[in-house]
Amino acid sequence: MSHIPDTPLLPNFLAGRWQKGQGQGSTLFDPVLGTPLVRVDNTGLDLAEGFAFARNSGGAALRAMSYGQRAAMLGEVVKVLQAHRDAYYDIATRNSGTVTKDSAVDIDGGIFTLGFYAKQGAALGEASCLLDGERIRMGKDPLFQTQHVLKPTRGVALFINAFNFPSWGLWEKAAPALLSGVPVIVKPATATAWLTQRMVADVVEAGLLPAGALSVICGSSAGLMDQLQPFDVVSFTGSAETARLIRSHPAVAQRSVRCNIEADSLNSALLDPAATSDSEAFKLLVAEVAREMTVKSGQKCTAIRRVFVPRALYAAAAAAIGARLAKTTVGNPRNESVRMGALVSREQFHGVLAGIEHLKTEAEVLYDGAAAGLVDADPAVAACVAPVLLGTPDPVKANVLHEIEVFGPVATLMPYDSESQAWELIRRGEGSLVASVYSEDAAFIARAAAELADSHGRVHAISPDVAASQTGHGNVMPMSLHGGPGRAGGGEELGGLRALGFYHRRSAVQASSVALDALAATGVPFKP
Amino acid sequence: MSHIPDTPLLPNFLAGRWQKGQGQGSTLFDPVLGTPLVRVDNTGLDLAEGFAFARNSGGAALRAMSYGQRAAMLGEVVKVLQAHRDAYYDIATRNSGTVTKDSAVDIDGGIFTLGFYAKQGAALGEASCLLDGERIRMGKDPLFQTQHVLKPTRGVALFINAFNFPSWGLWEKAAPALLSGVPVIVKPATATAWLTQRMVADVVEAGLLPAGALSVICGSSAGLMDQLQPFDVVSFTGSAETARLIRSHPAVAQRSVRCNIEADSLNSALLDPAATSDSEAFKLLVAEVAREMTVKSGQKCTAIRRVFVPRALYAAAAAAIGARLAKTTVGNPRNESVRMGALVSREQFHGVLAGIEHLKTEAEVLYDGAAAGLVDADPAVAACVAPVLLGTPDPVKANVLHEIEVFGPVATLMPYDSESQAWELIRRGEGSLVASVYSEDAAFIARAAAELADSHGRVHAISPDVAASQTGHGNVMPMSLHGGPGRAGGGEELGGLRALGFYHRRSAVQASSVALDALAATGVPFKP
Repeated sequence: MSHIPDTPLLPNFLAGRWQKGQGQGSTLFDPVLGTPLVRVDNTGLDLAEGFAFARNSGGAALRAMSYGQRAAMLGEVVKVLQAHRDAYYDIATRNSGTVTKDSAVDIDGGIFTLGFYAKQGAALGEASCLLDGERIRMGKDPLFQTQHVLKPTRGVALFINAFNFPSWGLWEKAAPALLSGVPVIVKPATATAWLTQRMVADVVEAGLLPAGALSVICGSSAGLMDQLQPFDVVSFTGSAETARLIRSHPAVAQRSVRCNIEADSLNSALLDPAATSDSEAFKLLVAEVAREMTVKSGQKCTAIRRVFVPRALYAAAAAAIGARLAKTTVGNPRNESVRMGALVSREQFHGVLAGIEHLKTEAEVLYDGAAAGLVDADPAVAACVAPVLLGTPDPVKANVLHEIEVFGPVATLMPYDSESQAWELIRRGEGSLVASVYSEDAAFIARAAAELADSHGRVHAISPDVAASQTGHGNVMPMSLHGGPGRAGGGEELGGLRALGFYHRRSAVQASSVALDALAATGVPFKP
Repeated sequence: MSHIPDTPLLPNFLAGRWQKGQGQGSTLFDPVLGTPLVRVDNTGLDLAEGFAFARNSGGAALRAMSYGQRAAMLGEVVKVLQAHRDAYYDIATRNSGTVTKDSAVDIDGGIFTLGFYAKQGAALGEASCLLDGERIRMGKDPLFQTQHVLKPTRGVALFINAFNFPSWGLWEKAAPALLSGVPVIVKPATATAWLTQRMVADVVEAGLLPAGALSVICGSSAGLMDQLQPFDVVSFTGSAETARLIRSHPAVAQRSVRCNIEADSLNSALLDPAATSDSEAFKLLVAEVAREMTVKSGQKCTAIRRVFVPRALYAAAAAAIGARLAKTTVGNPRNESVRMGALVSREQFHGVLAGIEHLKTEAEVLYDGAAAGLVDADPAVAACVAPVLLGTPDPVKANVLHEIEVFGPVATLMPYDSESQAWELIRRGEGSLVASVYSEDAAFIARAAAELADSHGRVHAISPDVAASQTGHGNVMPMSLHGGPGRAGGGEELGGLRALGFYHRRSAVQASSVALDALAATGVPFKP
């Protein structure tokens, strides 16, 4: 992003103080209007000082608190964020170009997740360590036993985050980190760093956290990985290419810094082979696919990218999904008739259009909303892309359709000929965050879960009995695991208290029962 | 190792058949006598075919079995190995140069660990997946819930192993992999590959495992990592430098292949600050340090490298440990008066001598057994190094003493001035496999465990009440975690059924209670 000097320069919060970068910075834009908003920069910051301050001051202060005290602190953060919700929605409209409903996924989703961990953490009470599993005898003599414990790692948690969730992406990671007793340094994606920076500013202003517990660095990520030491952890959400650089960095490759990656994903939706075009399962699939394609303009790592239906239903599904998509008005989110706003930037706009062309080398266009035009937005300026449904009758021969994630309102419909072929086609994604299954048959759902669990971090089954209560294919709920193997990056986030594992080190304490009793008095059973 | 043509060339077992390498190979030697034993080579093997065979045939066959069936299979493997114990001890004497007691740590330790998993696995019964935690409601409606499940990963497990445990190193990894339903390809370290190859040969000969379930490739590791695909896993034990190469390889960095590393470790022993030179704790420390220094000639990744005692006991500890070490006769393990055999190779011999010189830049020699000479061994040929106790009165100033692991019968004694200084000095190791604590005070032990758990995979406390039943600082017991953060590589092995986690993928199945009931019928609760 080019330099536009007249916009405010957002300061970074590091080493317990607000610090402005010494460079000209990068400008953040309104993706609908094209107007400049603010600038971010971290040139000249003393990163070593900032990381040491977080690691030492922040870490020590957090570890001196119990889980219950840290949970209460998260609860106070929730209140602060709720008090400033209007400002966050305003920033989201301006900087992310999202309609209110889509802004909520990010803003309220983040606050909800934080609240979830505040509640879960409260149940851990006054403990200072987690007891992992039962005490186990080491031999015939019951006096000498082993007890596994989890203790917070004595380092910082660095988050290098993605542009699509400046709020949720911060809090879904910071909540378990802070609850664990590990200080956080967040580097939001530049394009939407404003909301992250503002939320941190509000929390800092409220004075709820110990000094060094939460820092924000906006702008370039250059040099951040160099700061990491053996007991630090890094969590990255973004492209597979950046993921490769992070995992190859000496901090990870050589110093064993623990690393969690969430990268690309070609998530699937699968319709039961027994479904008909007038079945409930069919209707549920059509509604969910159309919704997932358009929420946040398809800029969700969990969005449905590949839709698998029995071959007989290919044409019917194409027509039904297309009819749904036709109701999606696209344009300026400030106009109340608009259902879907912009992509995050003009760069993404060009990238998505190029991606669609790439997919079209193997697919036909089944629906394209572009003809309807934009509401209240200039197509030469706005980063708005209308929903596009692609399709191919021959998904076995396809390659890029199973490999290329186009990060916009785009999905590809594909027919399958047998249940086993459906599993094979879905696995062509080489590891995804989520697969959803649409069926009225509990046995089929259980079979699908068993077949897809090893290649997906989540399997989401929608049957008519849960049509009203199901939480959505793409919504990441804090009680369920978020992450996936292979192309999806191999990471694990959330999953209730499981998320605390990343921020703790496990150790087997082998000792006499008397000593283990003394240790157990400081802990609480860990039951994720 | 140079080429000596008159020794037998060991074949590799890959793609379900025995295959000899097409090159001249590397020769394995007797480290005491210097005589050539066998050769290994894998030149020209079709690795892609072998990995695909393991992944497809081996994996499918293993996954078609229940946990209980696979556990029973491990039990049969135990019987086969027990039937050939004499041959293994003979190979160990010749190829590892170890006395019988030290050979047992590797051979019987491996068989014991395999038996442990056979027994643990039997309790999992006829299940085909593991149910991880309780079912959790997703909202107010109890019908839609999430259940986390663990399913075996659909790939191969590649083990790149270390020279010091050709038996245990295979089975401590293969037992949980095979129990999980994941086929194994082991690449033993060349210097001692013979025992690994022979054990695999005996198991293959017995016909107990499905085709493709267990393969062995001896010789170079070139090209092995290139074979790995997203759902494969790799487990490495060895140097930090090789670990770095493995983690930077595109298989891991780009394709998210799960990777477990166990690398260097400067394990500590800590004497209670309240101990006196005639206390039980002091005597227990002295005995354990001397034993750990000499078992397997100190070639254990878990061996004690740094010994911390209250400053007042520095001289007393040096004298007492030295007196113990003086009883350790060194030489040809075939002579019954010999207590400690050779290092694994003349290369290691030179490496350990150089390492001692390196440590001596910061330490004085408190005891050196070299003067006693070797029993039945030629010092110009045998890879025998006598035990050496080093020490420094100023461990705070030391650097290499906290950084360099000398893989032989070598440890460094260091005094500390306060409890908090002891924690700091121990943490200077930047992550270790194990720390042991010697104390009569349960409260001190609990405090030490709490302080050291986050930087150690295991804390082992020896108090007088467990003097007879404690399992040893350096012995890795299958019910306890093995691994450590930072310099130790960041990995996790064993820990009872926790070990199965590495070979499974976790997935959150969100579905109606009816569908979750159907899924649960195929699983068993996972309680590590």
